[in-house]
Amino acid sequence: MKRIAVDMDEVLADTLAEHIARYNRDHGEAITKADVEGKWLWDIVSMDRHDRLEGYLRSEDFFEDLPVIPDSQRVLRAMAERYEIYIGTSAMEFPNSFGPKYRWLRRHFPFLDPRHFVFCGDKSILKADYLIDDQPRHFLTFAGQGILFTAPHNMGVSGYPRVDNWEQVERMFLLEGGPR
Amino acid sequence: MKRIAVDMDEVLADTLAEHIARYNRDHGEAITKADVEGKWLWDIVSMDRHDRLEGYLRSEDFFEDLPVIPDSQRVLRAMAERYEIYIGTSAMEFPNSFGPKYRWLRRHFPFLDPRHFVFCGDKSILKADYLIDDQPRHFLTFAGQGILFTAPHNMGVSGYPRVDNWEQVERMFLLEGGPR
Repeated sequence: MKRIAVDMDEVLADTLAEHIARYNRDHGEAITKADVEGKWLWDIVSMDRHDRLEGYLRSEDFFEDLPVIPDSQRVLRAMAERYEIYIGTSAMEFPNSFGPKYRWLRRHFPFLDPRHFVFCGDKSILKADYLIDDQPRHFLTFAGQGILFTAPHNMGVSGYPRVDNWEQVERMFLLEGGPR
Repeated sequence: MKRIAVDMDEVLADTLAEHIARYNRDHGEAITKADVEGKWLWDIVSMDRHDRLEGYLRSEDFFEDLPVIPDSQRVLRAMAERYEIYIGTSAMEFPNSFGPKYRWLRRHFPFLDPRHFVFCGDKSILKADYLIDDQPRHFLTFAGQGILFTAPHNMGVSGYPRVDNWEQVERMFLLEGGPR
């Protein structure tokens, strides 16, 4: 059975939506996802507010209640019948996120085995056939095949099989048997 | 550069010593490590107290202040010059352990890159050349070479290269260049 590692932030959890919402709320702004196409949120927020941006990610409750990316639950549940699914998330930069991330996964993906949750930093440690992730930097050291999940910041990236949403993941892995 | 994954409980942290100490303190007993040779603590404690044993591991502070296994700091610091060192610890059974384990590693092994800490369940997800672990069950699915670190419960296990302490790890990896 092939093994697929799935990233969490921007792939299962809409971290960016929450980040923008908190920033807009506190600063009276109206940033949208369209504003960060091809960029990071840091690129469009003035330097003197970068500490605030970072602060949201470090706060106790940030990762507790993130929106779920559409269709990810339905598709992953079906995929778990035919693949070994692991969740591989970069958590070591934000130690406050461990508990919230674990609870979030248990709440929204109760059909996944928690022994398959991996909180790591560098994803080269993951032994899997595929890694579905929005951050192409992880593919440079990941030993399997990277699948780029579209997020605003990676719009300009090429060189990897790309999926724009979970319907496309479903097509790739359940109808076509894997990326071509 | 070869990569070595190192388990935490019973290899870097003397979890068993703390477990026995808490049990003895609360129950007026005098269990020693010699009493659990070839066994688990569960095997020598009466069934009606198994919940208590489990409870210690689930408590908020259990993993916060564990004794460090002798020589592990000195040897691991030297090994980090010649190998990629990752810490791979089963944490998903005890979500309360995430924060304490992270802080313990940062406090006692400040020379290790926290991006190389991996909190997982099933260790088959670790992509490494070697895994130093006291639990032989992990070697059944780990893709690299398992190195059994002696703990009371594994005294009767054979079939893997064995190290009794960190001086033997030092000899194996720094003097002999790896297990034979």
